[in-house]
Amino acid sequence: MNGKMKAIVKDRPGPGARLEEVDIPSIKENEVLIKVEATSICGTDVHIYAWDAWAESRVHPPYVFGHEFAGTVVEVGSQVQHVKVGDQVSAETHIVCGTCPQCRTGKAHICQQTKIIGVDTTGCFAEYVALPAANVWKNDPALPFHIASIQEPLGNAVQTVLSGPVAGKTVAVVGCGPIGLMAVAVAKACGAAQVYALDVNDYRLQIAEKAGASALINSVKEDPVQKIMELTDHAGVDVVLEMSGHPVAIKQGFRMVTNGGRVSMLGLPTRNVELDITNDIVFKGIQVHGITGRLMYETWYQTAGLLQSGRVNVEEIITHRFPLDQFEQGFELMMNGKCGKVVLIPA
Amino acid sequence: MNGKMKAIVKDRPGPGARLEEVDIPSIKENEVLIKVEATSICGTDVHIYAWDAWAESRVHPPYVFGHEFAGTVVEVGSQVQHVKVGDQVSAETHIVCGTCPQCRTGKAHICQQTKIIGVDTTGCFAEYVALPAANVWKNDPALPFHIASIQEPLGNAVQTVLSGPVAGKTVAVVGCGPIGLMAVAVAKACGAAQVYALDVNDYRLQIAEKAGASALINSVKEDPVQKIMELTDHAGVDVVLEMSGHPVAIKQGFRMVTNGGRVSMLGLPTRNVELDITNDIVFKGIQVHGITGRLMYETWYQTAGLLQSGRVNVEEIITHRFPLDQFEQGFELMMNGKCGKVVLIPA
Amino acid sequence: MNGKMKAIVKDRPGPGARLEEVDIPSIKENEVLIKVEATSICGTDVHIYAWDAWAESRVHPPYVFGHEFAGTVVEVGSQVQHVKVGDQVSAETHIVCGTCPQCRTGKAHICQQTKIIGVDTTGCFAEYVALPAANVWKNDPALPFHIASIQEPLGNAVQTVLSGPVAGKTVAVVGCGPIGLMAVAVAKACGAAQVYALDVNDYRLQIAEKAGASALINSVKEDPVQKIMELTDHAGVDVVLEMSGHPVAIKQGFRMVTNGGRVSMLGLPTRNVELDITNDIVFKGIQVHGITGRLMYETWYQTAGLLQSGRVNVEEIITHRFPLDQFEQGFELMMNGKCGKVVLIPA
Amino acid sequence: MNGKMKAIVKDRPGPGARLEEVDIPSIKENEVLIKVEATSICGTDVHIYAWDAWAESRVHPPYVFGHEFAGTVVEVGSQVQHVKVGDQVSAETHIVCGTCPQCRTGKAHICQQTKIIGVDTTGCFAEYVALPAANVWKNDPALPFHIASIQEPLGNAVQTVLSGPVAGKTVAVVGCGPIGLMAVAVAKACGAAQVYALDVNDYRLQIAEKAGASALINSVKEDPVQKIMELTDHAGVDVVLEMSGHPVAIKQGFRMVTNGGRVSMLGLPTRNVELDITNDIVFKGIQVHGITGRLMYETWYQTAGLLQSGRVNVEEIITHRFPLDQFEQGFELMMNGKCGKVVLIPA
Repeated sequence: MNGKMKAIVKDRPGPGARLEEVDIPSIKENEVLIKVEATSICGTDVHIYAWDAWAESRVHPPYVFGHEFAGTVVEVGSQVQHVKVGDQVSAETHIVCGTCPQCRTGKAHICQQTKIIGVDTTGCFAEYVALPAANVWKNDPALPFHIASIQEPLGNAVQTVLSGPVAGKTVAVVGCGPIGLMAVAVAKACGAAQVYALDVNDYRLQIAEKAGASALINSVKEDPVQKIMELTDHAGVDVVLEMSGHPVAIKQGFRMVTNGGRVSMLGLPTRNVELDITNDIVFKGIQVHGITGRLMYETWYQTAGLLQSGRVNVEEIITHRFPLDQFEQGFELMMNGKCGKVVLIPA
Repeated sequence: MNGKMKAIVKDRPGPGARLEEVDIPSIKENEVLIKVEATSICGTDVHIYAWDAWAESRVHPPYVFGHEFAGTVVEVGSQVQHVKVGDQVSAETHIVCGTCPQCRTGKAHICQQTKIIGVDTTGCFAEYVALPAANVWKNDPALPFHIASIQEPLGNAVQTVLSGPVAGKTVAVVGCGPIGLMAVAVAKACGAAQVYALDVNDYRLQIAEKAGASALINSVKEDPVQKIMELTDHAGVDVVLEMSGHPVAIKQGFRMVTNGGRVSMLGLPTRNVELDITNDIVFKGIQVHGITGRLMYETWYQTAGLLQSGRVNVEEIITHRFPLDQFEQGFELMMNGKCGKVVLIPA
Repeated sequence: MNGKMKAIVKDRPGPGARLEEVDIPSIKENEVLIKVEATSICGTDVHIYAWDAWAESRVHPPYVFGHEFAGTVVEVGSQVQHVKVGDQVSAETHIVCGTCPQCRTGKAHICQQTKIIGVDTTGCFAEYVALPAANVWKNDPALPFHIASIQEPLGNAVQTVLSGPVAGKTVAVVGCGPIGLMAVAVAKACGAAQVYALDVNDYRLQIAEKAGASALINSVKEDPVQKIMELTDHAGVDVVLEMSGHPVAIKQGFRMVTNGGRVSMLGLPTRNVELDITNDIVFKGIQVHGITGRLMYETWYQTAGLLQSGRVNVEEIITHRFPLDQFEQGFELMMNGKCGKVVLIPA
Repeated sequence: MNGKMKAIVKDRPGPGARLEEVDIPSIKENEVLIKVEATSICGTDVHIYAWDAWAESRVHPPYVFGHEFAGTVVEVGSQVQHVKVGDQVSAETHIVCGTCPQCRTGKAHICQQTKIIGVDTTGCFAEYVALPAANVWKNDPALPFHIASIQEPLGNAVQTVLSGPVAGKTVAVVGCGPIGLMAVAVAKACGAAQVYALDVNDYRLQIAEKAGASALINSVKEDPVQKIMELTDHAGVDVVLEMSGHPVAIKQGFRMVTNGGRVSMLGLPTRNVELDITNDIVFKGIQVHGITGRLMYETWYQTAGLLQSGRVNVEEIITHRFPLDQFEQGFELMMNGKCGKVVLIPA
């Protein structure tokens, strides 16, 4: 398909981005071209937009960024089977090698050769995106585009919540950014007895309440470990979902988990964190799970299934929608924390 | 505590039972005496009441039967710690040896020396019941007695549902007697994408719908395997919960599970069942789990936690409540299938 | 590569096979051509050779059969990466679709579209075989060809043994055909406390002893359930590995497993089997696992790793080696049970 | 039983201990008296003997210490069933409350009220020891006393090795003190493909080799991370067993584990350890398991079963045996690292 399209281009090594007219991408024989109907802003996109040290070391402007979306297939390559024009789709954003031990043993999401769409390749903040057919996920046509768009980060939350048992358990979600908020909703939908939401931002705690949190803890206004102990009859919580990446919050998470509990860690601290391994890991006999990406594609099936169940309260988490060309408003909100999930609509 | 109390006595080796005045039981040093506030009728009680072959081979009239209840502790033995007068409690009904390999490795619920309250010992269809403190489970005082009473069978459902992953999965509940109905509600509360309820009794299917079933299948009115295949895009369901004990339904359950799926079996067929092991178990690579009782006491924690979550719809399943002395109405309903769960109130 | 090669051809719908000269297969762009250095006879091959009902319904003569082998890559297609000329290789024999839910969730070995090499496609009882690169498994060059050849059935045994915990457990291997014998060796190498070998063939029981069995039970000479109970202090075994496919042996397997134990089933009964589900599955609270193929490719890594450990005694199980053109002797031995594993050498 | 016995008494708050004559302990109704036939020295005992900060904060001299042993029951309390005079026994050293959530859900080994024999109660460095019957483990009479004595620390190794899959995997044992050496032997007996032993002490590395290590790495003589990468084709190991408690070694352990691998941690660092959570835990998607004590009593069954298998090479690890009254030689060896396991014989 020839022609031009609007796209958000990370145009230079520095803060910001520009809406530009660029060529609609052409596809290879194993790729598909997708008309983007909704695309959402990830924390990773904010790093690229704001141009922090990580972004500087990783991405190569100028290029179109963005990786979360839902859309409609408009063209398929000659070797593509199982995806056809008209399919409503989203995509797994990890492009993996397929031949390393991880890829061959059900752990493709931690392939050592992983490339990420919109980081290492051309992204989806645009009217069209070209992707390998193997990465495409077919959506239920009944799923609205703005919700279908957030399945990728929702999958992060799902993998984190479901990396161990949660039904009937007490759960603390440490950090209520968009994925933390989703983790609240998912944990609740999966039968958690209590979901305690922790953050330092009352705005986000209010969204956590709407997503299903049983109690809200502002970690600068009260001691979160002490509060959790009060709420759990001094036992601690069964499960800690670490979504903050903040060293202090991480240490608190390890303090508040009960003996034999689980700490699933998705947040990314930017420096080393000191842990009391003896008392907080060994003597407690806990399990710590590092979580990245989504199981390919077990997590996608679980995520789609949870959305189908009708019990995951995601509408409350999508706080803002803008036309694609008003992307700067979305990024501003993300940078000052005054939002849940922000969705951009290209059309 | 001395005195007399009302109790439902299985008074003879034959159908029926009688309300009698009997001595309030005395307790041993490691036992507690509990005032029964609510007690519910199990299918096992119906076997005893109706006096079938199993009952004849197992129980020894005259004795007080019944094993599901909630009550208040009124007296504790001299060696009892951790349970005190005034505690609101229910009880695990398996009295186990504590020293066999199963008991010593977290599988006490399948202890080979198991005795069952109300079957092998004096039961709780009475104003008071005496039980080993080790079997007592403390209830949240906020939990209404009629709901607390059904935690024991609810625990059966919880163990069955949670014997493998269920969040985001498709689930077929085969057989919607009281525990099947609870399984529908529990599966839904634990994030099942779809819960298909199967039975031959439309009355019970209606309750299943209220409990959260996504679709109802009357197995005499349509072919349940074909229907499940239609509903699942010909993949079959991820999880079958076998609650019927009926040979035909069991075989259908094995037919409708997808490759790599799970069949958790709680129902008790009264004769051998022919299975196509090659095609339905081996080539499909499925897992079959035999389920009995409740994990002691992991399942009790999960059950209490799920009730706390507020997402298990059990009120709809408790269709009838009677005073204890109108027990015959309850048994009649159970025998003709015109009920969900039936609770008796002693006071 | 052009030219002719020797191959064992299933030449007609009836018993037997013929050594013929056929064309060396040509390869597609995603395939590789392999010189076969050793190839071994599977029970499936015997069904095809003997021409039983299953073979008649499934395979289409004339074609080259056989699927277990080790060899050296001599040519690779234009799109093949990660496999190169000179690599020593074996192959996974399930050719799968890659896009069904099973394939996308780590269960490709039970893909509903599975084709099997040497059954549904041209096989390896020949000097050369052409295969999809995706199915190729690279061997450690230090591994002798005759051992590398049997990794495929060894993988069956490995998947069966490791479908649950086995270290420190008591294990009964029911049926000591080649895969049963391998299961004995694998269970022992994985730390089983005791491995009880059961069969009706004393010749094979003798091989089981060499493979590491702790005790041998001839099921026609003594009651195997009673014997197992004696050996386990009347507890039953922790794990039953069902390798016989025989209805009577299957029922005995379910009788001899302890409460909470595991029955992993690989054997393929040719008719329905009656099970006492109530007493042998539900009340015992056991797990039953259907096992087919090998996890792709977790089982291959485990198998290669176990061979590397030096503790799997497979040499004793490979009882016979013949040149390819003496294949009829191998089939005769397999049909009368007077062998362990039989390997054919093309050169 | 009245009378006097020899015992090693921690007689004062300071270094050392004394052999003294003390009263043979009397037993309560639920206890048993055991004649100690062999008793072994744990690292914990060395801390008490040497009187470090931990010992000063925890133990209360004068008292008899020691907790690893094998012996013969000579007297049982009035309420004791299932243990009788003449039984050969060892004991689980965690005395637990039995009523907390951990105790009631199969995690008694991490009971928050745990008392440890020989630390918080009278120990077994003596001719007799009195213990609760619930803690007693019956030994196979065929098991020699010196081996039966070390089952408690061997159980630590077994729990660590078996906290995840190990058959066919590559394993690094970081730290080859006595439990590390046992972990080498256990991992090998459970089918590990390769067991890499790491320490800074060549004497102990030599023992590791006898115990079954595939390669020895002296972490001061070569870079252990680089060496592991060379040995694993730059993939890293599947499993790291952290037995050192040393901050530098711990960090190296996290560096050398492969994506999706497991780090099981038993060693006890005496200060906080800085971890690169982002790169070494989250992005790698690994699992970290804190390990303390032994699963009660699953680990004891596994340990006894592994000893029965005949494939755990523990004899090489028990490097020294002394009469009880030469205990000081044993402690000297432990303090300078010139030993594997040291056993004391009271008689």
